[in-house]
Amino acid sequence: MRVTIMLKDGCSAVEAVSAAVVSLENSLLTNAGRGSNLSLSRKVECDASIMDGRTLNFGAVGALSDYMNPVLVAKELLLHQNNENLSLHRISPCVLVGEGASQWARSRGLKSIKSDLLVSENALHTYNKYKRKVEEAENDPRKFLQREPANNETLHSEAKEMEKNPCISSEAWFPGDESLKLDTVGAVGMDCCGNVASAVSSGGIVLKHPGRLGQAALYGCGSWAQNSLSSTEPAVAVTTSGNGEHLIKTMFARTCAETLISNTDGVTGLHYVFHTKFLESPFLIHTSEKLAGVLAMKFDPVSNSVEVLWAHNTATMVLGYMSTHVTKAVTMFSTLPSSVDPGHKPLIQGSLLKLHNKIT
Amino acid sequence: MRVTIMLKDGCSAVEAVSAAVVSLENSLLTNAGRGSNLSLSRKVECDASIMDGRTLNFGAVGALSDYMNPVLVAKELLLHQNNENLSLHRISPCVLVGEGASQWARSRGLKSIKSDLLVSENALHTYNKYKRKVEEAENDPRKFLQREPANNETLHSEAKEMEKNPCISSEAWFPGDESLKLDTVGAVGMDCCGNVASAVSSGGIVLKHPGRLGQAALYGCGSWAQNSLSSTEPAVAVTTSGNGEHLIKTMFARTCAETLISNTDGVTGLHYVFHTKFLESPFLIHTSEKLAGVLAMKFDPVSNSVEVLWAHNTATMVLGYMSTHVTKAVTMFSTLPSSVDPGHKPLIQGSLLKLHNKIT
Repeated sequence: MRVTIMLKDGCSAVEAVSAAVVSLENSLLTNAGRGSNLSLSRKVECDASIMDGRTLNFGAVGALSDYMNPVLVAKELLLHQNNENLSLHRISPCVLVGEGASQWARSRGLKSIKSDLLVSENALHTYNKYKRKVEEAENDPRKFLQREPANNETLHSEAKEMEKNPCISSEAWFPGDESLKLDTVGAVGMDCCGNVASAVSSGGIVLKHPGRLGQAALYGCGSWAQNSLSSTEPAVAVTTSGNGEHLIKTMFARTCAETLISNTDGVTGLHYVFHTKFLESPFLIHTSEKLAGVLAMKFDPVSNSVEVLWAHNTATMVLGYMSTHVTKAVTMFSTLPSSVDPGHKPLIQGSLLKLHNKIT
Repeated sequence: MRVTIMLKDGCSAVEAVSAAVVSLENSLLTNAGRGSNLSLSRKVECDASIMDGRTLNFGAVGALSDYMNPVLVAKELLLHQNNENLSLHRISPCVLVGEGASQWARSRGLKSIKSDLLVSENALHTYNKYKRKVEEAENDPRKFLQREPANNETLHSEAKEMEKNPCISSEAWFPGDESLKLDTVGAVGMDCCGNVASAVSSGGIVLKHPGRLGQAALYGCGSWAQNSLSSTEPAVAVTTSGNGEHLIKTMFARTCAETLISNTDGVTGLHYVFHTKFLESPFLIHTSEKLAGVLAMKFDPVSNSVEVLWAHNTATMVLGYMSTHVTKAVTMFSTLPSSVDPGHKPLIQGSLLKLHNKIT
């Protein structure tokens, strides 16, 4: 809601998607910013990235431990590339990780916080639960490759809670366990000039190894945005969630964008790319359960309309969307049909928004 | 030489390219491992990655400060994905950075060394020289965007020295300055089973911000390898050097591989991709000087031959190649014609190696 007011006031797509992701990072119900999943060493380590469809610049941070809003550090890296020169023609970085990323952000005036303040009670509870399970499994070969059954009761009470929040997300979770789920967040958007942008932010998988980067930190994997290159070509923005390593190996954000640009119908394009470039990808041939969630938008300058598109083969995906013409977002808690197991056939949907004003 | 003996003894392409990169990392003449460029905080921080064309798995490390051979940590990450399961179906990471990467490597039995031992006298000399220049430039607006003229005398004495070393590299250097140049290293190779692999290792640009990742740490940007998918399709491996941010934004290793696979003639393909997907890339439209070096190989199963290909628009690129049929590597110090400025038109060359035994 606040974001559409910003857009009405003429803010850029980059500002809009980062503001949307900031509000999702600030929620303790998401796996981003404060309240993120904890790594093996009981710490929050966040990845985030943002891409500007106008300049095609990209900014990303990885393994960041002391910022409430990692996406704002990624945005600062992006804007620094657009606006500023380093002395002696040195080139602005586009990806910074770890303590170096924090140092840089502080030098740019972004305030860090104590790492411990990012740890939520819920995240700590989950950490302790899974730490114990991992220790048990590693001491008992029968449990080593056991899966947790999905807990539908928790899932549905969580669904009610989540439906109140117009946020966009999909799981990046402990395989098989649906309880206490926290999700990667992302946003795509277009401003009044037709510029698109995409952002993503994630605390990564629970009990990840410290220093592990997921798709949210990697170019082409977690976020992608490209403006129209001509008066007939579409503009596209994509953000992804799911299993980080799978999304990296398939460069899924960029791959989806490429397909959406070349395909006339968005849902058909997403169906094609999810099957051929993800589920049947030669890069995931040795993987049995492949998890992805995609939120995308495609602006067609010829029909002056936007398709909002989403697809996931994770058990659930929470999303919301709105244009500046309306006062209330459409929000939903999308759930795979009970007959379909996560990691296989995706649920793919879309919604067409006709724009009132011509974008030129 | 040692690598071809290993290959004759049946070692894998992954083992071969990592052994080649280890020997380049061990040299103080390269910007990889010990002797790497120093970051703004006077530290060595290395990126490295490796890709296996057989499994299409990828392992990468970034901002690693206490390993002699970062490529061996990347290789360990790669092999871990191929061979081992984590308990409870957790997924092996493919990218680890910073202290977390070091911890993981130590837990896998790889011995770290004190960070200071990676700093060479030459790197320190260069660091001091440029630190002073940056400080001067930042205090004097007239010097802010000054370039260093190329020093041809140093270049030619260095050429003599470098020609003795059969290494593969290209600059990732302070724009405009050719003196005391140290280069990113990489290797591509094929084993007796027709499996290809690629590896890359780099200390990054001198005076980089701590935590900055270059192309060597990022998927699709620094290394790429894909086996033949059928009896007629080529196998391709690519490694890149040059300006990290430019190679990231164009995903240049993967982009070259895609073009080489679909193009019948390697030199023509490399010419096309260098011009259309790098120099004229919409992702680098705001960049005046775009620097890349590519070393690639393409195996054509129909003619049973390998094209070794290289291209660079950096001032120089040192490379070497050999097959197991010969006893001496071809080595060269490739230099742009004096009429061509670095950052623009590339020099593109190739060499065809006919294989004695049929690879099936």
